[in-house]
Amino acid sequence: MAIMAKIEAVLIADDASTFVTREIDGVELSFGGIEGDRHFGLFAKADSRQPMYKRGQEIMNRRQLSIVSVEELQGIAQRLGVETIKPEWLGANIVVSGVPELTKLPMGIRMILPSGGGIVCEGENEPCAGPGKQIANYYGDRSLTQQFIKHAGQSRGIVAYVERPGEIKPGDLVEIQI
Amino acid sequence: MAIMAKIEAVLIADDASTFVTREIDGVELSFGGIEGDRHFGLFAKADSRQPMYKRGQEIMNRRQLSIVSVEELQGIAQRLGVETIKPEWLGANIVVSGVPELTKLPMGIRMILPSGGGIVCEGENEPCAGPGKQIANYYGDRSLTQQFIKHAGQSRGIVAYVERPGEIKPGDLVEIQI
Repeated sequence: MAIMAKIEAVLIADDASTFVTREIDGVELSFGGIEGDRHFGLFAKADSRQPMYKRGQEIMNRRQLSIVSVEELQGIAQRLGVETIKPEWLGANIVVSGVPELTKLPMGIRMILPSGGGIVCEGENEPCAGPGKQIANYYGDRSLTQQFIKHAGQSRGIVAYVERPGEIKPGDLVEIQI
Repeated sequence: MAIMAKIEAVLIADDASTFVTREIDGVELSFGGIEGDRHFGLFAKADSRQPMYKRGQEIMNRRQLSIVSVEELQGIAQRLGVETIKPEWLGANIVVSGVPELTKLPMGIRMILPSGGGIVCEGENEPCAGPGKQIANYYGDRSLTQQFIKHAGQSRGIVAYVERPGEIKPGDLVEIQI
């Protein structure tokens, strides 16, 4: 079975001072993710998200890309009572539409791009305070930081890695192989 | 939740003429798997198991290690009516005990070694004719090749990759993090 999703935006975190991303026209995905992005690399240092390893130990990077869906961001915005949640505030690299339950995609699932490239889902990207603070700053309401953590669970998107390099750009139709 | 499994054997396929493995005392797992093994490498060529890519294209190697369980091999042997199924005939790299349903482990699940190393499950290793032929040759019964394919489904073990290098050896207790 396959779901067809549409790429709505591609973004990069290339400002060393922040995880916030900015929109780009498209990019050639490499082994390791998006070159120049703060999460790029075949390897990464273990942190609080990998408590089974010592902090700072080198591990395979399963969190190269952050992917969110238009539908889920709209749902979070509604629950927070705000007009919109911009993907850049969440550090998203890829925005898709047509996948209302993106965050529930199981680990290991492939997304195949028209270019021939392939991305593998590594499961839910659990909400943390960073994006919440961006939202709180924008709307001038500090309570939104905690509300984001509370209301974005199971809809904040997934992390993924590049299995096969290839171009990705807005307008692409992606095949999600369930 | 965690299941504790015991490492019963470690094996390597280091004879270029065959996928059949041989037992070794233990090994230092590297990024890419077991150095010198035919499936070692961070990258691999796409083949019939990855029909979404063109054959021969370079992709991330999600099939570095083959893991089987004592309990499941016994089950296959019973269904085939033979005394034993040796893990080397299946090209297994790691034999565990204490995991009766190893093959049903979902993709993405971690196995943490006492050395601090970590392995990630990449799902079922589907039965093919190669191991069946080894079994058929050993028992002098050609029908066993097809019987293996028929009766080994969902019990032929999993493939996996190394997330964090570290030693693995017989006797190790491994934590499978469900």
